[in-house]
Amino acid sequence: MADPTQRPAGPSTPAVLIDLDIARRNIRRFQDYADAHGLTVRPHIKTHKLPAIARMQLAAGAVGITCQKVSEAEAMVAGAPDLSDVLITYNIVGAEKLSRLAALARRVTLGVVADSAAVVEGLSSAFAAEPSPLRVLVECNTGADRCGVATPEEAAALARRIAASPGLRFGGLMTYPPANGVAAVETFMTKAKMLIEAEGLPVEVITSGGTPSMMSAAQAPVTTEYRPGTYVYNDRSLVARGVCGWEDCALTVLATVVSVPAANRAIIDAGSKTLTSDLLGLTGYGHVLGRPDIAIDQLSEEHGRLVSEGPIGLIVSETVRVVPNHACVVTNMVDEVHVVEGGRLTGTWAVVARGHIT
Amino acid sequence: MADPTQRPAGPSTPAVLIDLDIARRNIRRFQDYADAHGLTVRPHIKTHKLPAIARMQLAAGAVGITCQKVSEAEAMVAGAPDLSDVLITYNIVGAEKLSRLAALARRVTLGVVADSAAVVEGLSSAFAAEPSPLRVLVECNTGADRCGVATPEEAAALARRIAASPGLRFGGLMTYPPANGVAAVETFMTKAKMLIEAEGLPVEVITSGGTPSMMSAAQAPVTTEYRPGTYVYNDRSLVARGVCGWEDCALTVLATVVSVPAANRAIIDAGSKTLTSDLLGLTGYGHVLGRPDIAIDQLSEEHGRLVSEGPIGLIVSETVRVVPNHACVVTNMVDEVHVVEGGRLTGTWAVVARGHIT
Repeated sequence: MADPTQRPAGPSTPAVLIDLDIARRNIRRFQDYADAHGLTVRPHIKTHKLPAIARMQLAAGAVGITCQKVSEAEAMVAGAPDLSDVLITYNIVGAEKLSRLAALARRVTLGVVADSAAVVEGLSSAFAAEPSPLRVLVECNTGADRCGVATPEEAAALARRIAASPGLRFGGLMTYPPANGVAAVETFMTKAKMLIEAEGLPVEVITSGGTPSMMSAAQAPVTTEYRPGTYVYNDRSLVARGVCGWEDCALTVLATVVSVPAANRAIIDAGSKTLTSDLLGLTGYGHVLGRPDIAIDQLSEEHGRLVSEGPIGLIVSETVRVVPNHACVVTNMVDEVHVVEGGRLTGTWAVVARGHIT
Repeated sequence: MADPTQRPAGPSTPAVLIDLDIARRNIRRFQDYADAHGLTVRPHIKTHKLPAIARMQLAAGAVGITCQKVSEAEAMVAGAPDLSDVLITYNIVGAEKLSRLAALARRVTLGVVADSAAVVEGLSSAFAAEPSPLRVLVECNTGADRCGVATPEEAAALARRIAASPGLRFGGLMTYPPANGVAAVETFMTKAKMLIEAEGLPVEVITSGGTPSMMSAAQAPVTTEYRPGTYVYNDRSLVARGVCGWEDCALTVLATVVSVPAANRAIIDAGSKTLTSDLLGLTGYGHVLGRPDIAIDQLSEEHGRLVSEGPIGLIVSETVRVVPNHACVVTNMVDEVHVVEGGRLTGTWAVVARGHIT
């Protein structure tokens, strides 16, 4: 990619490139693991926000998709009317969002989560008069300390409340696990399942997620479903954790060198408006492919600063490809991505669920 | 804003609110300072990306606007055809961008910067056959170590090269100063100006920028123009630096509490897709107005985690308003902002220059 004479054929930089061959391989790898261990796969679309890639995941064997917000689910379903099964892993609160949720439930098989009586009450009031009950899973805090009920006993109490609420149906248990938390998931979910089933309520689904620990998902055999997101693209944070290699990173940022103001410093036209400031515990803001000697040590909104110990050896107008720290948030920065197949640019796709935060 | 009964009238959360009364006061304050010190003001629109606010800045006395990318300038001019004077403070590189730059120069009075012979050559090749020469300023590194020529001597050499290049006109000197760098700006620019004028080239404009040091801009009297950006909204980083108070923050994020899973923890529906991961040297991701006892200690893409030492005292469905660490990057996350005047929501504006990174 370093030959400037090739540039006119490429997109204006900075540009987000998606290598579909790598993405397909990543999808296949986890689906095979899940199939071998009796887990269903429900990918989180936050990473790509693209109906076309959701279809690739479903074609590989996924049972449905995961979204985080109602508007994200609306955009995905609008972009792919054949998407028929959506789980929104979020507490949906407020009359306006509940009304949109009810409209969405008339179009697709829908599930949501709840971690409090207040959320369950809102859901019930919105669905009591709907033709079909809404499937509601109890979100459990297995150590990430974000949302979720704190104990198996609370999970059981909330499951009972859901089952007793007009318009709702208890659909199972959901968690976003902490780092290296597979044992905690197994302990929490086994106890919660036992308590709930002891009251005659079936626990249809126990769903966990997170790409970093996906290859140890089977070590929590109580889990029935897994929701990986980043696995489809991978990124520098996952390479750093040993989950994958650079050759498994499907999303890269193509950037142009716009300044080489010192022997060991160059500036690229991708800054925090493209790479984002997400660090995920790393030092620096991305990896320049083929140049492990370079660090991206500072971002402004439109400038990325590359520094090297020795001479940086870059020239103005040269392009580089950067693997970002966190692929999902990069997807959210751009209106379109450029698709690569067989090493060639083959199309441009609108990121239809970008920026859908409500 | 904490009364849930008021929520149906507000926007779906998370939502970015812009208090225009505060923004007008912020614009006026710096324009008055600049007027008193003989500085012209050329606001950087990256903070708001809104033609309507650019017009407020021009009406207050600004001489034009600053943009960072060609596509950003294109979007602003398309949104406000009366914008007639634009400076793009970026090295424009590559045939496709240079062609768009030439098209833009036929519509408005345009200036750009350059910090190398390579950039000057590209500009000259694109403008040699244009009807009017392009104004090109030399970008100078006064200590921020981003782009810019390293010494006044290099600045003078590049000024000569610009003046001798077909299609170009030397337009002056530009810098983005380092923190507390007003003395460095004065020293560098005074020397560069002397060297350039000694060769008979006038230095029309010496332009500096940055909200943090804007109230000491006059301590570099060689400066003729200032390009503040964040000053129109302000943010937590500027409050932390003592530049302004919370009452001067025009941009806030309205968020809803979706979970209170522990006595000292609550989750809001604004995460890094709204507040961003920008820290700007701070701890935590924003300030909850009226609740100095709360820290936003962790963001996921759609979750913000609020923690307090004592009981957090929030309930599900309650709203809070958050001043983000960095206003400019929040603007870039949303397709629209909600305008507040006289304490009431009065409109919704599309962020027309959002996501324009090329």
